[in-house]
Amino acid sequence: MQKNYQQKTLGILGGGQLGRMVIQSAINYNIDIHILDPDSNAPCKTICQKFVQGSLTDFDTVYAFGRECDVITIEIENVNTDALAKLAKEGKEVYPQPHLIKLIQDKRSQKSFYEERGIPTAEFILTENKEDVHLQVDFLPAVNKLGREGYDGRGVQILKSKEELHKAFDAPGLLEKLIDFEKEISVIVARNKQGEVITYPSVECSFHPTANLVEFLFAPAEISPELEQKAQEIAKKVILELDLIGILAVEMFVTKEGEILVNEIAPRPHNSGHHTIEANFTSQFEQHLRAVLDMPLGNTDLRCPAAMVNLLGEDGYSGEAFVEGLDEAIRQKGVYIHLYGKKLTKPFRKMGHVTLLDENVEQLKQRAKEIKEIIKIKA
Amino acid sequence: MQKNYQQKTLGILGGGQLGRMVIQSAINYNIDIHILDPDSNAPCKTICQKFVQGSLTDFDTVYAFGRECDVITIEIENVNTDALAKLAKEGKEVYPQPHLIKLIQDKRSQKSFYEERGIPTAEFILTENKEDVHLQVDFLPAVNKLGREGYDGRGVQILKSKEELHKAFDAPGLLEKLIDFEKEISVIVARNKQGEVITYPSVECSFHPTANLVEFLFAPAEISPELEQKAQEIAKKVILELDLIGILAVEMFVTKEGEILVNEIAPRPHNSGHHTIEANFTSQFEQHLRAVLDMPLGNTDLRCPAAMVNLLGEDGYSGEAFVEGLDEAIRQKGVYIHLYGKKLTKPFRKMGHVTLLDENVEQLKQRAKEIKEIIKIKA
Repeated sequence: MQKNYQQKTLGILGGGQLGRMVIQSAINYNIDIHILDPDSNAPCKTICQKFVQGSLTDFDTVYAFGRECDVITIEIENVNTDALAKLAKEGKEVYPQPHLIKLIQDKRSQKSFYEERGIPTAEFILTENKEDVHLQVDFLPAVNKLGREGYDGRGVQILKSKEELHKAFDAPGLLEKLIDFEKEISVIVARNKQGEVITYPSVECSFHPTANLVEFLFAPAEISPELEQKAQEIAKKVILELDLIGILAVEMFVTKEGEILVNEIAPRPHNSGHHTIEANFTSQFEQHLRAVLDMPLGNTDLRCPAAMVNLLGEDGYSGEAFVEGLDEAIRQKGVYIHLYGKKLTKPFRKMGHVTLLDENVEQLKQRAKEIKEIIKIKA
Repeated sequence: MQKNYQQKTLGILGGGQLGRMVIQSAINYNIDIHILDPDSNAPCKTICQKFVQGSLTDFDTVYAFGRECDVITIEIENVNTDALAKLAKEGKEVYPQPHLIKLIQDKRSQKSFYEERGIPTAEFILTENKEDVHLQVDFLPAVNKLGREGYDGRGVQILKSKEELHKAFDAPGLLEKLIDFEKEISVIVARNKQGEVITYPSVECSFHPTANLVEFLFAPAEISPELEQKAQEIAKKVILELDLIGILAVEMFVTKEGEILVNEIAPRPHNSGHHTIEANFTSQFEQHLRAVLDMPLGNTDLRCPAAMVNLLGEDGYSGEAFVEGLDEAIRQKGVYIHLYGKKLTKPFRKMGHVTLLDENVEQLKQRAKEIKEIIKIKA
């Protein structure tokens, strides 16, 4: 007799938009979801079975939260992994595994892991402080990254030349050779306890020039079948080398020389997979559930070419969010709005996203740019 | 500047699976949903912004509930329409309009409306009681329907001959000529305040032999383009003659003579539209929201042929529901599970549904039958 998922309680650390979209999938399986988030107005607050307001980094808070769940997972990496390790030791199912969250939390251990396991990545030097960085003039131009707590564009900067060295982060981090890349792509890969491994077709990301956030995403990525296969193999290698159970987003550079280098990874649903809700046979959010609950993994084929546009808080507006242009946008065929339930907007805050479906890839790109002009998040 | 849907509170009378799937769509638009339902464990209970336990037919309860909402709609017809009328009179937006819910609540007024407006429907006779029915021997074989509160197969029976007349309902109802139909089809049509009217492609329903519930549904219906167009026109005529704002399911018979007759209508999301979540560009649940909130209506094209299988409580099992065969089913490409969050099962209770997508229509039919054998709701 099959397992009945209604009998399991899934705890998610983090109650933001990723958790919110996981819940939208979980509803179809009657999965009880408990959410822990520091924000009393977190996007998941009113749609989960239990909401606990509390710190994700406090040992006692995370431990107490996890005690009431059967399976515990994350939607953000910056959590207390010691508490998760204790819960796992006591028999709770914690996916991704705590030691892997810890490894990925720090870009330094992440990079060292790639090096050890022969996973292609940009050349790098670990730095402990400002002075360390200053010694690396010959290594420039380079990307200076903070080891921990850099996300959504923060904790990452380019140091082009000696003159910019004064900006160097004065904390443990790294310097990475600035890659003159052709494209940035991402492959999402999932693995369950039974050992099934399934990848999504790679997608192409284009970043916001200043905010360093994904602005547009196109699926599938326009790369050769050879590169596509290489990207798929690298994503599989990463999840297998990690021995990770759950879902993993593998962001990669395609260099002008046709090399593929792993940039960063995220062990959770990822911005580069939002389009899968409408564009693929199984969404990354359902796939995440399937992986951590040890359900069979779902088919990941693309049903239709898609574009994803992040709806970022308009620069210059802060306060109660107001969505402009919604009617005009949703009149169009194949336009899907996803607002994240955030009451307050601020410049570049992720307030939602739009997925577009269009069999005509050229048209798709044009429409994505238009949608970005039509919908504005103001206050 | 466009309306911001985050600023409106939508009240739904009824918190069952239809409301649940409406909420899954509403999450994408940050729409606050209040639910009124008599069942303290209603499927919507834990995923709405406010849940009120109370009677849908009690004037004061419905009125008090509606006072706190901006827009009020339904997911079941059996509600107190006087309270809704008062709310509308006081400026609340109530869609579908209360007098139309009232008209549709009673199959007698429904049928009379078709007759008055020249909407093709099976010949019928209104009956006040058992004795009335007994006088209609010459009208047999006929379908004997209760005027009010017959749903999910209840309140409807076939009277083949004089010998069966003793079964006649002893309450206001009607006798309808038994139609020797070729197919049963359904067309869902939506209309918003601006007057936009959009229909979905027709679907074909096959009913459970004994439970008189939709067992399988196939989209698109296999009918000639001429019949398809006729069905679309009839659905539009019905919603326009009603002057209804919201969504309307129009169930029709296709007779062996190629006639189309309206059987029944439902002014809400309907079982015959569940497949639209995955199979159409806009789901019936989002379309319902768009219609009642006066948003532009969405495109209804079919993305892929689909089948829908209702998951009914297995005959002979009552108690805490247990889903058998889930893993085997979700291994398949294009299989979508929707469980309704009902803790207790009983014979033929609607516990969920499965949507299948398959470009190959013959394969689709075969797979639908297989899925029905794979998944069992037991206790």
